[in-house]
Amino acid sequence: MKDVAARAGVGLKTVSRVVNGEPGVTLETESRVRAAIEALGFRRNDSARVLRKGRTASIGLVLEDLADPFYSPLSRAVEEVARANGSLLFAGSSAEVPEREQELALALCARRVDGLVIVPASEDHRYLEPEIAAGVATVFVDRPAGRIDVDTVLTDNAGGARDAVAHLIAHGHRAIGFIGDTEGIYTADERVRGYHEAMASAGLPVDEGWVSMGPTSPERVRSELDRMLSGPAPVTAVFSGNNRVTVTAVRVLADRPDPVALVGFDDFELADLLRPGVTVIAQDPVRLGRTAAELLFRRLDGIAEPPRRVELPGRLVARGSGEIPPPSA
Amino acid sequence: MKDVAARAGVGLKTVSRVVNGEPGVTLETESRVRAAIEALGFRRNDSARVLRKGRTASIGLVLEDLADPFYSPLSRAVEEVARANGSLLFAGSSAEVPEREQELALALCARRVDGLVIVPASEDHRYLEPEIAAGVATVFVDRPAGRIDVDTVLTDNAGGARDAVAHLIAHGHRAIGFIGDTEGIYTADERVRGYHEAMASAGLPVDEGWVSMGPTSPERVRSELDRMLSGPAPVTAVFSGNNRVTVTAVRVLADRPDPVALVGFDDFELADLLRPGVTVIAQDPVRLGRTAAELLFRRLDGIAEPPRRVELPGRLVARGSGEIPPPSA
Repeated sequence: MKDVAARAGVGLKTVSRVVNGEPGVTLETESRVRAAIEALGFRRNDSARVLRKGRTASIGLVLEDLADPFYSPLSRAVEEVARANGSLLFAGSSAEVPEREQELALALCARRVDGLVIVPASEDHRYLEPEIAAGVATVFVDRPAGRIDVDTVLTDNAGGARDAVAHLIAHGHRAIGFIGDTEGIYTADERVRGYHEAMASAGLPVDEGWVSMGPTSPERVRSELDRMLSGPAPVTAVFSGNNRVTVTAVRVLADRPDPVALVGFDDFELADLLRPGVTVIAQDPVRLGRTAAELLFRRLDGIAEPPRRVELPGRLVARGSGEIPPPSA
Repeated sequence: MKDVAARAGVGLKTVSRVVNGEPGVTLETESRVRAAIEALGFRRNDSARVLRKGRTASIGLVLEDLADPFYSPLSRAVEEVARANGSLLFAGSSAEVPEREQELALALCARRVDGLVIVPASEDHRYLEPEIAAGVATVFVDRPAGRIDVDTVLTDNAGGARDAVAHLIAHGHRAIGFIGDTEGIYTADERVRGYHEAMASAGLPVDEGWVSMGPTSPERVRSELDRMLSGPAPVTAVFSGNNRVTVTAVRVLADRPDPVALVGFDDFELADLLRPGVTVIAQDPVRLGRTAAELLFRRLDGIAEPPRRVELPGRLVARGSGEIPPPSA
């Protein structure tokens, strides 16, 4: 830090302010300090141990929705790794609003977290470059970072979606609907891609009414399902793009007189106790969270290696709903 | 702040350090500053607007378990109120360890949150007194604070438990088991109290084997249920003390040849789609979180009134499992 201060021609306190995102530094001074930091390859990692004296080490987690049950075990897994490394975890959610993700991530940096685990809502993360240069370790999970190259832990979403649709095809279905999350969300786009790939590789045409992307609100999912099941080219099976969609799909299909096949992306509690049990592509949110946090603490331990991209497989769990044959098969 | 500094005989920076929990202040100086703060009735609230310049306002949430679905909607409700008030939310969990609750709460204060919403794991919260004196607004939710008098938002746990047991009695049950969370947890103690009150007011004796308190792990719940259902005085109905217990109870009872009545404390997703649907005492976690956060922002707006205690009712939702009669009724 002394070297940075000397190079930038400012006091130690000013360097500390810039590193910690505290106010009271002009833009011109800040950019001089940042330049000095970059020139010297200054690692927050080293200074963190000093700055940390008298306060508790911490990492931040930015996720999409505190109330989505997919993120609950992921958050807890990150917290457990943090705890094992003597760190506290602070979590907050972006509610899928890019500006909020950025605000939250930078607010956590300003509060001197040593690292960030991010489920991104935005597509451009260059705003994190100064923080990363200042030594804040950063790992993306569930969705990749945009325009920066950092450690990333993902599920093989397209592969899982292909498996789901191939499973329905293997059980005799030709008219298969897909209800996914909003277009532009990485996982939603990957899953619809997997759907199209599986249909194409089986030589099956896709009616334009069979694919529906949008918010996962029960109202939208219900009306889209009703439309797909009763139109001129009705589907005999449904692939639901995430746990929020699946839960509504289960409700809608329970109200119908004839059984309709269903495979959901994401496992959920009690899926096995419903009648029929719900066939899913299970992600492993605990392993996603744990892997991301472990990569983060490797970086905080000073491991310098190129950014890693880890992709975890989805796993098809057959429970009954995905094995229902088409009506007149 | 100038007045505090003058009264304590220290510089402004030292006052700021104490208020923000930063290191570099001796204990003796700190206690002088705290005394001056108390003497002058200094409110962080006022200074916060100054300190906040150049950084984002924030509040902290300390809860018990990031992965418990009861706390997910509660967290989101707190976050929505925070957002509506221009604040970010940082959440972390104590994992039911008192020291961790304290560490997390104080770490959030050191990072200058304007207020705290706490689901406590400990029974003595005097460690928060300096923070509260320095103006950090504090609201307890789900469980009361210990040895300090602050705003609190609770569910009427004993009343809800009485309703659950009275419902089973009204359906003909006399031998009713209770499986609750660990003794010493406020909500667990209140619910077992409600159980005993309902049995007593119906004039029913309670066999000592019918009540089991302890961790909510599936293994323990399963073995305790098996014991209660097959002992010399087998129960014909079960009241499960929270959502974690209920989910395991549903699994265990689904494996048994004869139907056993079940009422659970806490509603949970898909409870209505199971066969039979699961009868519950539904809390309103969204309203708990929203009410707590609204009380917090009232305090941050400078409302000075005695601490309030809000108690929300539980609501019995009959879905089938709680209306099963005893075998030979």
